[in-house]
Amino acid sequence: MSQPTALDLPPVDPLPPATEAYFAKCVEKLGFVPNVLRAHAFDIAKLDAFAALYNDLMLGASGLTRLEREMIAVVVSAENRCFYCLVAHGAAVRTLAGDPALGEALAMNYRVAPLDPRTRAMLDFAVLMTGASATVEDPDRARLRDHGFTDRDIWDIAAVAGFFNMSNRMASAVAMRPNPEYHAQGR
Amino acid sequence: MSQPTALDLPPVDPLPPATEAYFAKCVEKLGFVPNVLRAHAFDIAKLDAFAALYNDLMLGASGLTRLEREMIAVVVSAENRCFYCLVAHGAAVRTLAGDPALGEALAMNYRVAPLDPRTRAMLDFAVLMTGASATVEDPDRARLRDHGFTDRDIWDIAAVAGFFNMSNRMASAVAMRPNPEYHAQGR
Amino acid sequence: MSQPTALDLPPVDPLPPATEAYFAKCVEKLGFVPNVLRAHAFDIAKLDAFAALYNDLMLGASGLTRLEREMIAVVVSAENRCFYCLVAHGAAVRTLAGDPALGEALAMNYRVAPLDPRTRAMLDFAVLMTGASATVEDPDRARLRDHGFTDRDIWDIAAVAGFFNMSNRMASAVAMRPNPEYHAQGR
Amino acid sequence: MSQPTALDLPPVDPLPPATEAYFAKCVEKLGFVPNVLRAHAFDIAKLDAFAALYNDLMLGASGLTRLEREMIAVVVSAENRCFYCLVAHGAAVRTLAGDPALGEALAMNYRVAPLDPRTRAMLDFAVLMTGASATVEDPDRARLRDHGFTDRDIWDIAAVAGFFNMSNRMASAVAMRPNPEYHAQGR
Amino acid sequence: MSQPTALDLPPVDPLPPATEAYFAKCVEKLGFVPNVLRAHAFDIAKLDAFAALYNDLMLGASGLTRLEREMIAVVVSAENRCFYCLVAHGAAVRTLAGDPALGEALAMNYRVAPLDPRTRAMLDFAVLMTGASATVEDPDRARLRDHGFTDRDIWDIAAVAGFFNMSNRMASAVAMRPNPEYHAQGR
Amino acid sequence: MSQPTALDLPPVDPLPPATEAYFAKCVEKLGFVPNVLRAHAFDIAKLDAFAALYNDLMLGASGLTRLEREMIAVVVSAENRCFYCLVAHGAAVRTLAGDPALGEALAMNYRVAPLDPRTRAMLDFAVLMTGASATVEDPDRARLRDHGFTDRDIWDIAAVAGFFNMSNRMASAVAMRPNPEYHAQGR
Repeated sequence: MSQPTALDLPPVDPLPPATEAYFAKCVEKLGFVPNVLRAHAFDIAKLDAFAALYNDLMLGASGLTRLEREMIAVVVSAENRCFYCLVAHGAAVRTLAGDPALGEALAMNYRVAPLDPRTRAMLDFAVLMTGASATVEDPDRARLRDHGFTDRDIWDIAAVAGFFNMSNRMASAVAMRPNPEYHAQGR
Repeated sequence: MSQPTALDLPPVDPLPPATEAYFAKCVEKLGFVPNVLRAHAFDIAKLDAFAALYNDLMLGASGLTRLEREMIAVVVSAENRCFYCLVAHGAAVRTLAGDPALGEALAMNYRVAPLDPRTRAMLDFAVLMTGASATVEDPDRARLRDHGFTDRDIWDIAAVAGFFNMSNRMASAVAMRPNPEYHAQGR
Repeated sequence: MSQPTALDLPPVDPLPPATEAYFAKCVEKLGFVPNVLRAHAFDIAKLDAFAALYNDLMLGASGLTRLEREMIAVVVSAENRCFYCLVAHGAAVRTLAGDPALGEALAMNYRVAPLDPRTRAMLDFAVLMTGASATVEDPDRARLRDHGFTDRDIWDIAAVAGFFNMSNRMASAVAMRPNPEYHAQGR
Repeated sequence: MSQPTALDLPPVDPLPPATEAYFAKCVEKLGFVPNVLRAHAFDIAKLDAFAALYNDLMLGASGLTRLEREMIAVVVSAENRCFYCLVAHGAAVRTLAGDPALGEALAMNYRVAPLDPRTRAMLDFAVLMTGASATVEDPDRARLRDHGFTDRDIWDIAAVAGFFNMSNRMASAVAMRPNPEYHAQGR
Repeated sequence: MSQPTALDLPPVDPLPPATEAYFAKCVEKLGFVPNVLRAHAFDIAKLDAFAALYNDLMLGASGLTRLEREMIAVVVSAENRCFYCLVAHGAAVRTLAGDPALGEALAMNYRVAPLDPRTRAMLDFAVLMTGASATVEDPDRARLRDHGFTDRDIWDIAAVAGFFNMSNRMASAVAMRPNPEYHAQGR
Repeated sequence: MSQPTALDLPPVDPLPPATEAYFAKCVEKLGFVPNVLRAHAFDIAKLDAFAALYNDLMLGASGLTRLEREMIAVVVSAENRCFYCLVAHGAAVRTLAGDPALGEALAMNYRVAPLDPRTRAMLDFAVLMTGASATVEDPDRARLRDHGFTDRDIWDIAAVAGFFNMSNRMASAVAMRPNPEYHAQGR
């Protein structure tokens, strides 16, 4: 199997049993181990910290649906032009929404996507945070509340948008390569 | 005590004993509980995931010294103009380096700081990742290797720079307020 | 059939026989009439002028292959985040190259695509022209000549890149909608 | 006569009679053959396609006056800092408006020109399309309609602004040189 | 004493008596001669012209308080990331306001500082002038008048903001070094 | 006579004799009083401080010729799109150089002007200072020295470029109107 990044950081060998089990579960559910996990496997503490944060944000309890969280992931990754995350999370949006064109629109220019005003406001906030976070002020948060988001929802929007601003940069910095299986998903 | 952010998300009450102990250790070592931890305390799973990642990156084993990691934190936060992180990590640089002027220079314009070429290359990479991550390519990583950084070091530089691109945006998105005690530290 | 843009500009009715024949040929070859042609059909002189320029540039004799011209179309459209052109010409790249991942990479961040240096130089020139045309100078043209491009090739690269800077803006200005058939092509 | 661009692409020799006649008409009306036409004359199909589109847009029937179309040409060219187009179309604005200061203001900073609100809205739309076309949305088109522009007018504004985003880039990419006669016109 | 800039431009020697007296007064009041004055001392005409303009703007009669003028100096210098001016005028804000946190906030991201709306409007105008002066129009001036600023106040805001756009660039162009005494002032 | 700016700041009345004499000399040499001087005449101390700095920089002894200083004025004003300064100093370049096309090129895109490498390096430095002063470092100054500029020349380049970054912003902030006589000068 090819290296998941441009860095020469081979995985711990053998992997600890818990990691083996986690990767086996990925294969079972997705058909492969996402390269972002393989990339972290040179240091199990790092892999576990990354996976714990990711799973809490993207799969944990939240007022945001899983699709909403994936939509944020895609528009943030589009702003940052992160190939890895656009491929992986574009596939997730296509699959969860059952709508290939929506996944494409969010990856290319979310402003053209047919979105309800609440979703649009959520994505506008994520894009503002991505490109000009120092300018976020009370009226920006108030706009989210006007669309029915709670303060807990605002935290979650900010946390997901923040997370992909981290992982987009990490992926680009180490030239992380998306698993080829993503391209055909949800088309 | 004032709210740590603009969101109304009170801490779990009472805090679980492990969190109580963690916060007590902060008070013992720093004199206060950093507001970034108080802000997460509305959901202990989130607090734990954030703290685990932070502690691994900033305090765990690495080829980068603690000061080097704090320098990355400050220059990334300066690019993003994040008040919370500049105040908190500017204090860390001043204290760890024993050099108030260095902390100021990194927070204002790292190009004027008197840095050895290796440190400058490390910070240039962090700044490039912050402002134009999609343009990072092999020659950028090669430049770090030319200065003696290993692939593991490159991962760590990227991970710290990535982390602060997340936390800068999170802090600005929720208007996180730095503890006032930071201002006088290391002057 | 839905309107091809946000403007209320219905096609000439009936279409002149030459236009009928042209559209019929589109249906025969592509399965549909591209919306960019339907959008111009309110004024046949405009449709003919647009089609003549497009066909000369993209299908006429040139030192650039059809795939090379489509690659320029996609990277320029990615810089401008033009949904219509990314969808239509991304499909062309996937089909002509027989490589879905290449089409995705060019649409998301061409710097990560596995390109030979000559192709990369061609796309770098197109991107420079798109984002900072006023800074193009002799060394930029010399770089293309160093990669074996003739002066006629340079004209063609510039003309294709220029054309998509026009049509990207036109498409976004009138909210041109891509035909849904493009999404599944070449996957 | 000096070469019209930095590329070595001599005109077809002899020119076909129709091109000879076209160029003779330019000399009769303007006193010279614009270099943009001389530059295309290495390939008559390209010259004809370019001229047909240009003439339709700038001289054909439209709800926009010729001066309005030239004003769009100048403000778009100013955004792109295209020397050739600013010189040639600045001269056209000075001459058509009979107002040298207006031509200068549009070429330097159209916001300081004394414009009626309708003209200003038209130019704002052209500038928005030039610098951030992906952000154009329904409210931007609605603003033009509020100033009395029809959907056909909006198409024409967009088409002229789009055209100069093409020709500005083309001119800069090949270092097209304006005919010296333009400088003194309309002063 | 170290050189005040990266240029080798030693002061006139001996200094004329009036300059000696001026520098002696600086030492008496501040404890040192600011490096910006030492840097100009290679040419007394330049020193006098600079000092005359500075003293008129920052210390002369005005509807703006000294603190307000220093606040403008700091936010403009923050936009331009000028180390010299941020250090020198950050110290002035801390001292005049008796509020170290305010000085820090203005130097890092003035949007997070707890400012009354009038002061905020003043600083927004200074920041707009700094980053996009060509876009300043009547409504921007009207906004200042709405907050009670007179036309003379507007002149003074513009003049101070303009001045620091000059001196920030001058300081960075010659690598002017702030006197180390500033760092500890007003903490 | 119309007001020189958008602010209602009438000149001191009567003007002091020295100012009367200065303005009379302007009329004698230029045919009019430049509006930048009329604009300052509401406060003679401000007028004198501005004029002293201007005259020292633009007319005083320097290793730079008057034309070189006016060329810097124009390219800086072009970066900032300052109508007043482009009109006034564009006229000066046309007149001093006896070359209308040069004045136009510098005002529109100095990269296309036929400049010797030394002059180009000087203008590149001025443009760098204007757009990204915080990034100026030793290699930028070394490049000027390589072209034969002394440290005193570098100071003068920086001072002129800095000055116009002030006066461009001041002129735009108060909507300063150029005297109409400039438009026809040196054509």
